[in-house]
Amino acid sequence: MTFRAVALLTPHHPRRRSGSLHPAARQTLLAAIDAGWADPRRLHHEGRRARGLLDQARAVLAEGLGVRPEEVSFHMGGGSAAVAAALDGLAWPQRRHARRIVASAVEHSSVLIPGRYAAAQADDPTLLEEVPVDRQGRIDLDAWAVAVARPGTAVAALQHANGEVGTIQPVEEAYAVCSPAGVPLLVDAMASGGRVGVPAAYDALVLDATSVAGPPLGVLVVPGRTRFGRGGPLREAEFGRADAPAWVPLALAAAEAWRQCAAVADEDAQAARELTRRIRDAVAALPDVEVAGDPDHRLPHVVTFSVLYAAGEAVVTELDRLGLGVASGSACTASTLEPSHVLAAMGVLTHGNVRVTLPWEAVMPERAAAVDALVDALPGVVAGLRPDQPLPDQPLPDQQRPGRQRTHQPTAPVEGVGPTPVVVDARGRRCPIPIIRIAAAATDLPEGTRIDLLATDPATGADLSAWCRMRGHTPRAHRPRGRRRPR
Amino acid sequence: MTFRAVALLTPHHPRRRSGSLHPAARQTLLAAIDAGWADPRRLHHEGRRARGLLDQARAVLAEGLGVRPEEVSFHMGGGSAAVAAALDGLAWPQRRHARRIVASAVEHSSVLIPGRYAAAQADDPTLLEEVPVDRQGRIDLDAWAVAVARPGTAVAALQHANGEVGTIQPVEEAYAVCSPAGVPLLVDAMASGGRVGVPAAYDALVLDATSVAGPPLGVLVVPGRTRFGRGGPLREAEFGRADAPAWVPLALAAAEAWRQCAAVADEDAQAARELTRRIRDAVAALPDVEVAGDPDHRLPHVVTFSVLYAAGEAVVTELDRLGLGVASGSACTASTLEPSHVLAAMGVLTHGNVRVTLPWEAVMPERAAAVDALVDALPGVVAGLRPDQPLPDQPLPDQQRPGRQRTHQPTAPVEGVGPTPVVVDARGRRCPIPIIRIAAAATDLPEGTRIDLLATDPATGADLSAWCRMRGHTPRAHRPRGRRRPR
Repeated sequence: MTFRAVALLTPHHPRRRSGSLHPAARQTLLAAIDAGWADPRRLHHEGRRARGLLDQARAVLAEGLGVRPEEVSFHMGGGSAAVAAALDGLAWPQRRHARRIVASAVEHSSVLIPGRYAAAQADDPTLLEEVPVDRQGRIDLDAWAVAVARPGTAVAALQHANGEVGTIQPVEEAYAVCSPAGVPLLVDAMASGGRVGVPAAYDALVLDATSVAGPPLGVLVVPGRTRFGRGGPLREAEFGRADAPAWVPLALAAAEAWRQCAAVADEDAQAARELTRRIRDAVAALPDVEVAGDPDHRLPHVVTFSVLYAAGEAVVTELDRLGLGVASGSACTASTLEPSHVLAAMGVLTHGNVRVTLPWEAVMPERAAAVDALVDALPGVVAGLRPDQPLPDQPLPDQQRPGRQRTHQPTAPVEGVGPTPVVVDARGRRCPIPIIRIAAAATDLPEGTRIDLLATDPATGADLSAWCRMRGHTPRAHRPRGRRRPR
Repeated sequence: MTFRAVALLTPHHPRRRSGSLHPAARQTLLAAIDAGWADPRRLHHEGRRARGLLDQARAVLAEGLGVRPEEVSFHMGGGSAAVAAALDGLAWPQRRHARRIVASAVEHSSVLIPGRYAAAQADDPTLLEEVPVDRQGRIDLDAWAVAVARPGTAVAALQHANGEVGTIQPVEEAYAVCSPAGVPLLVDAMASGGRVGVPAAYDALVLDATSVAGPPLGVLVVPGRTRFGRGGPLREAEFGRADAPAWVPLALAAAEAWRQCAAVADEDAQAARELTRRIRDAVAALPDVEVAGDPDHRLPHVVTFSVLYAAGEAVVTELDRLGLGVASGSACTASTLEPSHVLAAMGVLTHGNVRVTLPWEAVMPERAAAVDALVDALPGVVAGLRPDQPLPDQPLPDQQRPGRQRTHQPTAPVEGVGPTPVVVDARGRRCPIPIIRIAAAATDLPEGTRIDLLATDPATGADLSAWCRMRGHTPRAHRPRGRRRPR
């Protein structure tokens, strides 16, 4: 499950189709297609021109990032491909004595999924250590230091900011313990690059041009001092760091987007911060809605909240009907039914999740008006989705039905030892139905009643904890049963 | 060293910059950037539109290829990325009982380089079997059948046509032996796709949209009957077959390019065949110039020839100066000094190599005029580069200097046992200098003289054989010395 920080608040004007690409980047892409199409490895005139243009794109990014051009490589598969190249390039030179990866529990899936896979393949869970985060999504620096110092650590990976909830990580502090331990730090700035200043403390840095309203092109920075070497056969492209050569027009458009956005970043961030604050304030006034992420150390253009008892999908669909495009990180809306690993790691409500990512003003001049419309619409949308207008009680798809899946049996007693326990059976139902059912059951029960909630939706455990916290109940135990063997 | 079949004959009109992108594909790319920018995995309106557009692109290609849409996946790293995915996906399900890859010796580097690497890593040269080709570049079908039938063969890979020399392989015949042996066949149609009809005999098929004047986007076709499963963690993109999601505008532009080019493919091929025939005829009239590749079973738009005693780089530079952009597959011009593995496998002259790839007429309406200009310019260019106006005798870069590199000591006797042997020392000199030196030495020697040529340029062995064949001399032996240990 990947969440990309593409900008997503877009009113649909029938006659105006806004794109996420900066107008100047779009223009550059077009001009580059006409001028710089040839293969830069060619010798002839057109090839030389293409090579010159690629170097030009590299130089623009290098200057913006304060590095040397040969430290910058482009990656066609986007930021995720750059992350894969970076992890490989940092780990490979150490393969004889160290193989472990340390990462935050809210790290991008391009770090966690291969890490979990490698650990499962080697049947060695220590090959990936996920450092826990607090309720705001910020890593536990003490746990980080311990994890990094553990022998056998090859690479540490920490995102600059989380694209789902906006929280900025203490990268400088994290680097301060990596460096003396001799563990290279990969900083993933896919969500923050260009929006806020990129940290200077890293051994490899990854960006994606989408964060500056460019095309999806990954950018990897490897300072000359970093020990870096990729496994596998020698590669030709991008100083041997990329699997495929960059398409020159994409690189130029990415560089132009960077140049344009960097020039107005501070001003844009200030305006975006003001707009997201308005959304936060509006959300805070709604009952049973939680805003996620650090309120201060955060991306200025992202605001994320969860609506108790509502499906994120329903909120998104309703807003969409009103012409407001937003995203949801809720389990219920993604292609997989796993809850967002970020929200789960933070211990916040994973259902009813709505994320608003403001595009750059240059891309969407009417974004302030769109925020107005969103703020006006939200109370009605949320109220309309609440219990008196319940969601269709969608069954889970087959692979999530009881008998084929482990059963989550969280036990939520309502204070102390009291009257006869009540069993709420929500097996085979998708989130937020299990939470709606336990809430309905809890309404009429005396204080101290124990409720046993049976559910098969994997989001239930995390959401029950969040619900108990929001409601002042005490979660007692959470017992997964009938766990399938890992593949 | 990769050679892409991008179109390359382009006169430089100062006021007109032609691109390799089909005008309709360029238009589509632009429209798609404006309309289909959003992440197709999103739920909201823009996301749905993007998803619809991606499906539309897939449907166009599927229809053109006569397959089902879900059998088609897009790959951001271009055809090479699609080849990597295909090799992985075909081999992985068989990893317990078979690991060997059988490929033609002229296969694309995206097949041969990882194959050679895997064989070297496992210290088992049998893991990659390179089936030899004849002088035209066509595989030896008997050797192919033996190689495929050998136990432990996991995958066979054969290109439809070679992008360097244009030769079309007997894919149907190759498939006819793969199928009964239970060995899946990967057909690489990167150079031929859209230009000539794609074969129907394959278990996986790879194309690159550049062959239809589209952007560099890889396309992989995996029929439903093929056993296919990629190793590594589960992937989300493109039915789990690609590492990264496709950028919707690129996919749409690729599909539009396919649609446009397919409609005129036969007509365009006929015109291109006529033009390349003119170049072949003009080349055949020049002394000491060899045309490479099968004269009949070939790509209609590619013509490749080698100029004895000239560096490909020099020919390209001269033509470039006259405003004609062509490519060279010669060792001397690539970023590496290894000779073209295709030319070497065919046993033809690897130096002085010039390749002309005609763009689609829709991309370059003036291509016939450009061919006229090329045909007019060639005799003068070639004569100007011949012995009376010798090439600058460029030294090899450091890593190719004597003492740090093995020495090639081909022995070329001029008929029988005769007068005192002559030693020609061309160590440290780049091709075609060693051949020019032996030719100069041979001029004044009596018939039957043995000449020992010492050289360090790795292209020398192949080129000496070709020179002897062209001149009617007898190559005696070829002894690499001081071979470095393989890395």
